[in-house]
Amino acid sequence: MTLDEITRYLHEHIPLTRHLGATVLEWDGTSVRLGAPLAPNLNHRATAFGGSLSALAILSGWALVHLALRERGLDARVVIQRTELDFEEPVAGDFSATSALPPAREWERFLATLSRHRRARVTVSSTLSTTSGVGGEHRGTYVAVLTG
Amino acid sequence: MTLDEITRYLHEHIPLTRHLGATVLEWDGTSVRLGAPLAPNLNHRATAFGGSLSALAILSGWALVHLALRERGLDARVVIQRTELDFEEPVAGDFSATSALPPAREWERFLATLSRHRRARVTVSSTLSTTSGVGGEHRGTYVAVLTG
Repeated sequence: MTLDEITRYLHEHIPLTRHLGATVLEWDGTSVRLGAPLAPNLNHRATAFGGSLSALAILSGWALVHLALRERGLDARVVIQRTELDFEEPVAGDFSATSALPPAREWERFLATLSRHRRARVTVSSTLSTTSGVGGEHRGTYVAVLTG
Repeated sequence: MTLDEITRYLHEHIPLTRHLGATVLEWDGTSVRLGAPLAPNLNHRATAFGGSLSALAILSGWALVHLALRERGLDARVVIQRTELDFEEPVAGDFSATSALPPAREWERFLATLSRHRRARVTVSSTLSTTSGVGGEHRGTYVAVLTG
């Protein structure tokens, strides 16, 4: 799947992602970066709406788990179970959410549980960035259920 | 301000709220309820996208603090500092986010700090509901800065 195909998948299946202007910018097998422009995500303070930042961060962690499992030939339904986001600087420009695989030991434990029970849970950290700095730190817990 | 006026304010100043279909359904001085239809907020599983649920919950807590301060004649800039959302049942219908003022002692402490330092922080709980039950529990921490 190319980055454009992943973006198209999101836009087709999660219509709000079109309004966020979310696009998949990078995927290197261990981290994924999603971006969104400021304009459609403005709030009453002319910075990015917290709900938009949260949505992009949730989506970025979801995309990471989905893509990383797929690369290992695993088809899974991935759903978010818990989200936590600490906002830092106000975001006054286009922004991105970068999610990376958790430390190897956690990730391996997740894969082992998934293979044994067909269901497992993993927590993924994401950083919201903008040109001026860090907009927030997100932790999302996702549940994967094997479907293949 | 009528409920329609508050909804209009949100739609004008936070364009994403139009795409969420967010409307203010109730405000009784101590709690506020915002609603959104399922259709524009669908995910790839035909239930509500976690990012939409998170955005409505964040908005609901923000509206509560904003409206409650306004009713006390206080003009303040209110921004979210931290959001935490535990997802429960998948949301397969239209949904709402209800936020209520925190226990009196916490709320009074918040107002006292705000009046003394012109800046204070408060945590607001919200429940995401749908026809079939509870979709999630949200806690948002908001910082208010007096502007008036």
